[in-house]
Amino acid sequence: MDESEQVPQLGDALPLVPSDPRWLPIALSDLDAVHADHLHCERKAAQSALSLIRSYPERADLVAAMARLAHDETRHVVQVSQLMSRRGQVAAYDFGDDYAAALRELIRKPEPARLLDRLLVFATIEGRSAERLGLLAEALEDPKSRDLYASLATAEVRHRDIFLSLARDTSPDTWRGRAAELAAREAEILAGRAISARIH
Amino acid sequence: MDESEQVPQLGDALPLVPSDPRWLPIALSDLDAVHADHLHCERKAAQSALSLIRSYPERADLVAAMARLAHDETRHVVQVSQLMSRRGQVAAYDFGDDYAAALRELIRKPEPARLLDRLLVFATIEGRSAERLGLLAEALEDPKSRDLYASLATAEVRHRDIFLSLARDTSPDTWRGRAAELAAREAEILAGRAISARIH
Repeated sequence: MDESEQVPQLGDALPLVPSDPRWLPIALSDLDAVHADHLHCERKAAQSALSLIRSYPERADLVAAMARLAHDETRHVVQVSQLMSRRGQVAAYDFGDDYAAALRELIRKPEPARLLDRLLVFATIEGRSAERLGLLAEALEDPKSRDLYASLATAEVRHRDIFLSLARDTSPDTWRGRAAELAAREAEILAGRAISARIH
Repeated sequence: MDESEQVPQLGDALPLVPSDPRWLPIALSDLDAVHADHLHCERKAAQSALSLIRSYPERADLVAAMARLAHDETRHVVQVSQLMSRRGQVAAYDFGDDYAAALRELIRKPEPARLLDRLLVFATIEGRSAERLGLLAEALEDPKSRDLYASLATAEVRHRDIFLSLARDTSPDTWRGRAAELAAREAEILAGRAISARIH
């Protein structure tokens, strides 16, 4: 099996619903708010990867993968902060993320379920980010922003698959079933939230 | 004033005492322990930089500098994890860092003293790391490890100066005095600790 076949198979295990079609016009109507939120999303993605290194240092595969992923995400923080500077926009405070918090509540406490769930929750957040950054990339008019968002969307798909691949290695028998469960719960969480000019 | 003159001037504001000469032989006698601690030092340095972005998003200069610094530090995490893999060494848990905790206790609560102190404490940690990584670089026998540690020491000097430069911009009138105070307190903290095979 070559790499090009393997990647879609992993992603199929996490069947996220498409975003509500009302999200894109709302996001496009307040790009400053989207960028401000996005900066913190990339920051928190880097922090989440580093937190897994702290929790599971004995997993050399995970440490190597998460260090590289955090390195990617910190580059994204640089890129989004540069985009905001070009737009003359100052970053805003991060007032928390109910979406991620609701997903994190689904993480079970005992190991190894805890590690599996953390990996799958991060995969879910990356998957949703990838979808929405891709929608923005297709809709943005400024070529520089469009290219940036397209490249970020591609990176987030890759990150989702890194988390899914670690989840598969962690719990080969149960990861697919749990991924499908979490995808279904994510759809409920999204449906219960107001649609706003944020990535999530 | 050119860049080559400016960098030493910044560093002069933070006159750290030389490490106890007993530290290097102890560190060399247990390099596995040093690397295991070092991996977490780099991880925590990245997390500290990201935490400043969270706290001060309105400071565009700080956001840009800290995003780049976190990107650097996450590359170091990758490099140290690769070094450990080459040595067949698995990472260990991080049992906390009394040294950094003691320094963090010196951070005053009210702003802008709080930001100044956070920047100077991070500068201090980077400065001490730079000194010790430099000592290791000079003493290590394996050429790959030596080169890596030499490059990391150079990077940590640069990071120290980034923090000092932000401290100067934050509190132009008081940063030098406070940096000297913190350098003196750091000497006391080091003197009160057992010497061990760790970076700090």
